[in-house]
Amino acid sequence: DQALTIATPPPAGKVLLVGAGPGDPGLLTLRGLRALNEADVILVDRLVSPAVLSLARRDAQVIDVGKARGGPHESTQARIHALMVSYARQGCCVVRLKGGDPMVFGRGGEELQHLKRHGIAYEVVPGITAALACGAYAGIPLTHRDHAQSLTLATAHCRTGAAKPPDLASGDGRTRVYYMGVERLPALGARLLAEGHAADLPCALVENGSRPGQRTLHATLGSVVEAARRHAIQSPALVIVGEVAALGMDLAWFGETLRPASSDTLRRLAVA
Amino acid sequence: DQALTIATPPPAGKVLLVGAGPGDPGLLTLRGLRALNEADVILVDRLVSPAVLSLARRDAQVIDVGKARGGPHESTQARIHALMVSYARQGCCVVRLKGGDPMVFGRGGEELQHLKRHGIAYEVVPGITAALACGAYAGIPLTHRDHAQSLTLATAHCRTGAAKPPDLASGDGRTRVYYMGVERLPALGARLLAEGHAADLPCALVENGSRPGQRTLHATLGSVVEAARRHAIQSPALVIVGEVAALGMDLAWFGETLRPASSDTLRRLAVA
Repeated sequence: DQALTIATPPPAGKVLLVGAGPGDPGLLTLRGLRALNEADVILVDRLVSPAVLSLARRDAQVIDVGKARGGPHESTQARIHALMVSYARQGCCVVRLKGGDPMVFGRGGEELQHLKRHGIAYEVVPGITAALACGAYAGIPLTHRDHAQSLTLATAHCRTGAAKPPDLASGDGRTRVYYMGVERLPALGARLLAEGHAADLPCALVENGSRPGQRTLHATLGSVVEAARRHAIQSPALVIVGEVAALGMDLAWFGETLRPASSDTLRRLAVA
Repeated sequence: DQALTIATPPPAGKVLLVGAGPGDPGLLTLRGLRALNEADVILVDRLVSPAVLSLARRDAQVIDVGKARGGPHESTQARIHALMVSYARQGCCVVRLKGGDPMVFGRGGEELQHLKRHGIAYEVVPGITAALACGAYAGIPLTHRDHAQSLTLATAHCRTGAAKPPDLASGDGRTRVYYMGVERLPALGARLLAEGHAADLPCALVENGSRPGQRTLHATLGSVVEAARRHAIQSPALVIVGEVAALGMDLAWFGETLRPASSDTLRRLAVA
């Protein structure tokens, strides 16, 4: 009977690479929320907050792929690749949920390349990356006409450009934001000083940015390592380096703000 | 009658500085949507898309403050400052709705400083800045382990660091994203070449990123100006410079992708 051989084509699965934002579920995008509502399977990193996951469809299968930002093992990454392809081939709508934005420091590019190689359809939903969340919630304008005309996002491992020309004043018109473990702070501070940045260049450490328990510690490049130790700043924390960091001393509106006992530079910038 | 002198205190107004994202209303955050639903008054820039505004409370008063990104007159900015303070003092919930993210290239910092000086309460809701939207919707991973370890956002006017050391290969491990008018592209291209970047460094121009009608033009630093002219790329457009730009030739999933007829470098990177 010929009719029986006309099989239904297999359902077309797809993968949505979704940025979960920094933790506050209110910072998920509308499109991200819709993806969580449509998902059959959700592959989730360790850094995604439970409050975001609670917005997912109740019967979605949630799989913890146990990947901390910045430090996945190759075996973990290979498992993520294999799970995405396998569930999509079964016709599932797979949401790959990543902290922050999927295209910034998250190996999202490698995941897309793997999907492309295997002919799996995908879409990408951007998310609020930690720098934007911390800027907003710590009252630190990441760019500012008077202080910073460009913004660089980096991890603590990497250089963000050549050494600062020695004829510049304390700021070089750039804000630098480092995604990092707090344990890397001493090495980062030493490197920035060695590159010629002034010891009184303002820094802010934002711990638990946008989440309950946010603390913003204001310091200078010369004092930030000791200040972080004194206040026992923990990961996740973001480091914002540049004149704009000091503005948050005055403009903060969320969480706790730890101001240094005295710093002429910081005070001058904060009241500008 | 003493009881009559116990007046109700004036209602406490506040200002919510909200990032509207790049245009696709699906890229507004949940918190941004709530702000639009609570607003009595919305002060809106020219670059915010009508689709986002249509999510606002029906009876909110919408005031076009006519500010294009990057080019406001001082009088326009002064009017925005005055309107925010005036409506907040009348007890209104004022939403200051800005394209992209309020802390990145939008004078949000100056607006917060003005509010602080006048004792007006405020909150900041971050938004998806154009770089994140264009990266996601053009399939360009802004960072990538093999190609770019840092990401710099800048406008076309400003330098993003010292000249590239001459001993580096075509990429220097950094992705540069320029928020700019297309008319500034020739000057930007010339400056990057003069700073020592290779003529075959990949570039992508993303026109109408994340919106219907998105076009992504792939080229190299040496060919991008002529290619943009040939394809009549218009503002709003974003320029992504760095090896990762070429990955979008292969990874694109949204809008139209314009690939150059031939480029060995681009082809090599795209299939990597």
